[in-house]
Amino acid sequence: MDDSTKQDGKTLDLLEKSATEQASSSSNSDCTENIEEFRKNLAQTLEAKSFYIPSFKIYGGVAGLYDYGPPGVKHFALEENMLEVDCPCLTPEVVLKASGHVEKFTDLMVKDEITGTCYRADHLLKDFCMEKLDNNKDLSVDKVQELKLVLAMLDDFSPEQLGSKIKEYGIVAPDTKNPLSDPYPFNLMFQTSIGPSGTIPGYMRPETAQGIFVNFKDLYYYNGNKLPFAAAQIGQAFRNEISPRQGLLRFREFTLAEIEHFVDPEDKSHPKFSEVVDLELLMFPREEQMPGKDTVKLRLGDAGTVNNETLGYFIGRVYLFLTLLGISKERLRFRQHCAHEMAHYAADCWDAEIKCSYGWMECVGIADRSAFDLRANSEKSGTPLVAHEKFSAPKEVEAMDEKEAMEVKAALESKGKVEFQVCTLEKAVTIKSNMVSISKEIKKEHQRVFTPSVIEPSLGIGRIIYFLFEHSFYTRPNKAGDEQLNVFRFLPVVAPTKCTVFPLVKDPELEAVARQISKSLTAAGIYNKYDDTGNTIGKRYARTDEVGVPFAITVDHTPTTVTIRERDSKDQIRVKVTEVVSVCKDLIDGVRTWEDIRRQYPSHPRMSPADE
Amino acid sequence: MDDSTKQDGKTLDLLEKSATEQASSSSNSDCTENIEEFRKNLAQTLEAKSFYIPSFKIYGGVAGLYDYGPPGVKHFALEENMLEVDCPCLTPEVVLKASGHVEKFTDLMVKDEITGTCYRADHLLKDFCMEKLDNNKDLSVDKVQELKLVLAMLDDFSPEQLGSKIKEYGIVAPDTKNPLSDPYPFNLMFQTSIGPSGTIPGYMRPETAQGIFVNFKDLYYYNGNKLPFAAAQIGQAFRNEISPRQGLLRFREFTLAEIEHFVDPEDKSHPKFSEVVDLELLMFPREEQMPGKDTVKLRLGDAGTVNNETLGYFIGRVYLFLTLLGISKERLRFRQHCAHEMAHYAADCWDAEIKCSYGWMECVGIADRSAFDLRANSEKSGTPLVAHEKFSAPKEVEAMDEKEAMEVKAALESKGKVEFQVCTLEKAVTIKSNMVSISKEIKKEHQRVFTPSVIEPSLGIGRIIYFLFEHSFYTRPNKAGDEQLNVFRFLPVVAPTKCTVFPLVKDPELEAVARQISKSLTAAGIYNKYDDTGNTIGKRYARTDEVGVPFAITVDHTPTTVTIRERDSKDQIRVKVTEVVSVCKDLIDGVRTWEDIRRQYPSHPRMSPADE
Repeated sequence: MDDSTKQDGKTLDLLEKSATEQASSSSNSDCTENIEEFRKNLAQTLEAKSFYIPSFKIYGGVAGLYDYGPPGVKHFALEENMLEVDCPCLTPEVVLKASGHVEKFTDLMVKDEITGTCYRADHLLKDFCMEKLDNNKDLSVDKVQELKLVLAMLDDFSPEQLGSKIKEYGIVAPDTKNPLSDPYPFNLMFQTSIGPSGTIPGYMRPETAQGIFVNFKDLYYYNGNKLPFAAAQIGQAFRNEISPRQGLLRFREFTLAEIEHFVDPEDKSHPKFSEVVDLELLMFPREEQMPGKDTVKLRLGDAGTVNNETLGYFIGRVYLFLTLLGISKERLRFRQHCAHEMAHYAADCWDAEIKCSYGWMECVGIADRSAFDLRANSEKSGTPLVAHEKFSAPKEVEAMDEKEAMEVKAALESKGKVEFQVCTLEKAVTIKSNMVSISKEIKKEHQRVFTPSVIEPSLGIGRIIYFLFEHSFYTRPNKAGDEQLNVFRFLPVVAPTKCTVFPLVKDPELEAVARQISKSLTAAGIYNKYDDTGNTIGKRYARTDEVGVPFAITVDHTPTTVTIRERDSKDQIRVKVTEVVSVCKDLIDGVRTWEDIRRQYPSHPRMSPADE
Repeated sequence: MDDSTKQDGKTLDLLEKSATEQASSSSNSDCTENIEEFRKNLAQTLEAKSFYIPSFKIYGGVAGLYDYGPPGVKHFALEENMLEVDCPCLTPEVVLKASGHVEKFTDLMVKDEITGTCYRADHLLKDFCMEKLDNNKDLSVDKVQELKLVLAMLDDFSPEQLGSKIKEYGIVAPDTKNPLSDPYPFNLMFQTSIGPSGTIPGYMRPETAQGIFVNFKDLYYYNGNKLPFAAAQIGQAFRNEISPRQGLLRFREFTLAEIEHFVDPEDKSHPKFSEVVDLELLMFPREEQMPGKDTVKLRLGDAGTVNNETLGYFIGRVYLFLTLLGISKERLRFRQHCAHEMAHYAADCWDAEIKCSYGWMECVGIADRSAFDLRANSEKSGTPLVAHEKFSAPKEVEAMDEKEAMEVKAALESKGKVEFQVCTLEKAVTIKSNMVSISKEIKKEHQRVFTPSVIEPSLGIGRIIYFLFEHSFYTRPNKAGDEQLNVFRFLPVVAPTKCTVFPLVKDPELEAVARQISKSLTAAGIYNKYDDTGNTIGKRYARTDEVGVPFAITVDHTPTTVTIRERDSKDQIRVKVTEVVSVCKDLIDGVRTWEDIRRQYPSHPRMSPADE
C-alpha cells in the first residue's frame, strides 16, 4: 500500500508539472523537448487506436487520404454500439475493380445519332410501352400481353435484346425524332485522377460500403477480434446518371447511410431479435409477387421467408426508424428480391419500399451479401480479411468433406479433369489430374479461420427525406375558404424549426418578451424563429404551417402568459411565460404529448376573424 | 366569433378526414386524387420555401444536383441563427471560373526530367534553404541573410524566380538526383465531367463557400430580404495536393466549415460585439510581424487594427469555440495577413494559428472579402446578387461624386482618354472621350441597390481535430516506472467515448450490474464502452486512458455502489449504482465539475498493487 501511494504521488507530480507547463505562456507543453519523438509517438497512438486509418491501407494507401476511425467520429447508432467510420469520397480504381463497379456498374445508353444526346435505353422502351398501354385502348389482347411482358422483363434485357426491341418498335430520339444508336453500357461512376502525374485513376465512390470493407481488419481488431460487430458510415455517394428524372428522387450526388454487420456465417442469430419479433408489418415475399397477389401483413417472427434472424432484426429496426420519423405505416412495405434480381452471392435481400406519387419506391435495401465483399477485397489486395474462432481444445479436421473428395478423385481418374466453380471469379476453373493429388489427411487445428458474412442495411437518406415530405404534406382551406394553404405535418422530432415566436402586434414591450423567449429556447437547444413582421397573426400562422413548424408561441397583451398553438389541430393553450420553454422542451423531446399538455393548461379561444 | 368557429369546424373535419385516410390501409392519403397536381404543389412549396434549391441555379442548374436549403438540414450554429445549406461536391466549371479557381488555384510544380515524378517547387527550395541553415554552421553572414530572405519571399516568387533559384542552387530531384523541369502551374482541383456526353466539365469543389454565394438570392429571400444574415455549410472539400506531406495536416479530401456573413458595406457593426469585447487573446497584427517582434496579448476591444466589428466578433467567437474544445489558450494566436498575402479585393484577413509540433499552423481563416464573390458570380451568371435598402422617402442622388466627375471630365478633355480600374476584371479599362459624355444630373431614388460585403470564417475541421489530438496528448509512467503510458486529456464535451464500464473481475453478478449500467448510460445518450476482458483493472484503466475516455466506472464487490475514476487525476469516488448515470450526465454536460463531484462523494482509495 505504501509503495502504491508513493507511485501515485510521483505520477501526480508529473501531471501537475504538465498542467503548469501548459498554463505558462511561453511553454510548448508536451512537444517542446523532442518534437520528432512526440509526433511519432502521437501518430503511432492515433493509428494504433484507429483514430485515423490511412485510406485504402490494404491496397498500400493513397497519399493525402485518411479515414477517421471509430473513436474519431461522433456516434451514429448509439443503440447498436456500432463503430462509425468516415472515409474519403475519392476512391482509387483498384478498390472499385475488386468490388466489381469498374466492370459492372453500368446502365445501357443509346445516343441520338445526329445530335449525340444520350438516353437510358430502358427508359425509352418503358416510356414507349407505357404510352401505348395508356393511350391505345383498342390494342389486341396479345399486344397488351406482349407490352406488359416487356415491362416486366426490362431490368433483365441484354444490350442486344434491348436494341432489337427498340428497332422493332421504331423508337426514335424523343426530342428530335432522329434514329438511335445501339445500346451500350455506360459506367455510372465519376472518374478523376489522384495526384499530379495522372497515373492513379480514381473515382468518386458510388456507395460508402467499400470504405468499411477495406478497413475490416482494423475494425475487427478495434472490436477486440470478436464477432459479430457492425460498422456504419454516413456520407456522400456519386452516380453519373445518364438522364436524371423524377426530380428529387434521382440525384447525381446523394447521402447514403450504410451499415455493415459482420457475422459468423454459421451463426446468424441476433440477441435482440426478440425486441422486434412481434412487430406487424406489410411484407411482400418473393412468392407473393405475381399478378393478382398483394402485400401481406405479417408478424416479423412469422415471416419464414426471411433468411435469418439478423436480417429480420434489421428489417424490424428499419421499420421502427422510418415510422418514428413519420413515414406512414400503411405506405411502407418490405419487398423481397426475386432470385433473378439478386447478385449470385447474395443469400437474401429485402427492400423497404415507400408509396409516394411515383408509386412504390425503394429507399432502403437490407441484404445478406454473404462473404463476397471481404473475399473480393482479400484477393485483390493480398491482405486476408478473415476472422478467427479459437477452439478451447484442438480439433481434428479434414480439408474437404470425405464424400466430396472421393467424387473428385473418381472424376479425375476417369475423365482426367474436373470443374470447380470459383465464387469470387464468378467462373468455373478446370483442374487436371496432373495438377493435384488427393489423399486422406487429418490435421489438428487450434482455431477456425473464416471469412465473415455481412448483412448490409443501406439507407438512401435523401429519398427518405423526400418521402417524409410527401407523407407530411397536405392542404387545407383558409378561413375565407377562397384559398388552399399548404401544411407539413412534420413530427416535432424531425421538424427543422421547432417553434416560432410572434409578438401579436408591433409593440416594444411585447417584442422584448418575445425576444427573451426566443433566446431562452435557443439556450435550451430548441431551434426557433422570431418573426416580428407586421403581418396579421393569421398570415404568420399560415407561413409557419407552410414550413412545418409544430408550435407557434404568441405574446399578446396578457402580461405574464403567452399562447402556444399546435399546427395541425390549430388548438391554442395559455401558458405562463416562465413555463413556456419547459413545456416546449417536453413536447419536442416526446416526454409529453400535445394531448397531455392540452389537458393541463387552459385552452385559448381560436383566432377571431379580426386577427386574419 | 360564430363564423370563426364554423370555419374551424370545417377545417378540423378536413383534417380528421385526412387522418382517417392515412390510417386506412388501402388509401394513398394526400396523393390519390390527382398525383400530378399533388406532386407539382409539393415541389413548388419545397422550392418556394427553400427546402431544396436546384444546384447552381443561377447558372441554369445541372440535372441531378440539388442543394438542401435552410429548413431542410439540421442547425449548425444555433446561437447565430445561421441558415445552413448543404450543396453538392460536384461543381460545374462555370462556377469555378467565376470564383477564379480554374485560372488561379494552382501550385508551382517541377518534374523529375527522367522519371516524371512531381514535386512542389517551393517545397524543394524551402527544404534546401532549411537544410543549409541547419547543417552548415560556417555559412557567411551574407549567405545566411540571403537564404533567410528566400524563405521569407517563397510565397511571392513567380515561376521564373522560383526556377532561377532552383537552377542557381543546383537543386535536383530528391529521390533520384535527376535534373528538374522548369516550374509550371498545376491546378489543384480534381477534374471530372458531369453527364454521359462528357460535355459538362466539372470539378470536386476546393471549398464549400461557392455553394453559398450561388444561392445568395434564395437565402436573402428566405431571410425576409434583410441584412445582415449568415449562411453556413459543413462538408467535404478536395485539393489534389502535388505531394502531401505533414501526415494528418495536408489531406486531399477534408472537412471544411464555412460561414458567409453578409453585411451592408456601409455598416459592418455587430450587435453582439459587446459579448466578446473583453476577451484577451494573443494577436499578431501586421506591423508586429518583423524580426525580433512577437505576438501581443490584446483585449479584443483594443485591437484597433481589426478592420471592423463583425470581423472582430468572429475572431472572438472562433477563440471561444477553439478553447471550449480544449485548444490551449497559450498556443492559439490570431495573425493578421500582410498586404502582400491578401487578395487585392480583401479588406482584412486574420488567421487563427495553433502551435503544434510543426510550428504555428493555420486552422481557421477569418476574412472580409468585400463584395468580390457576389460580384463575380453576378457577372458570370447574369443574375444580380444584390441587396436593397428601401428609403422611407425618395432621395436625390448623383451617379458619381461631383469632384471625381469633374476630374474625369478634365482628363478626357485634355488627354482624350482616361483609365478606370475595374475591380472584378482585375485590370484597367481605357475610356475615350468619344465613348462618353459627362453631365450633371440628379435622380430621385426610392431604394439603394448594392452588393453586400461578406465576412468569411472558414474552419478546417480536420486540422482542428488534429491540433486537439496534439494539445491533448501526454505520457506518464506506469506504476512500476518501467513503461510510459499514453493519455489523451480530452475534455468530456469532445471525448468520443464518455465512459467505460468494467466489472472488476469475471463474475456473473458483477457483469450483470455493469451491463445494466452500460445500458442505462446508452439510454441517457452517453456513448460508453463495456469491457469485461479478463485483463487486470490497471491494464483496463491504461487502455481507457489511451483513447481519452474521461470516466471509468468499476463494479466491484460492494453490492449497491460503484467507483468512478477520473482519467487525469486518477482520483476515484464511490457512488450509488442508482446515481451513477445522473452523476456522469452532469459531468459530461458540464453542469458539475469533477471538483464539485469529488467534494460531494466519498473518495475511494487508489488502486492497490494487487490490482495491477
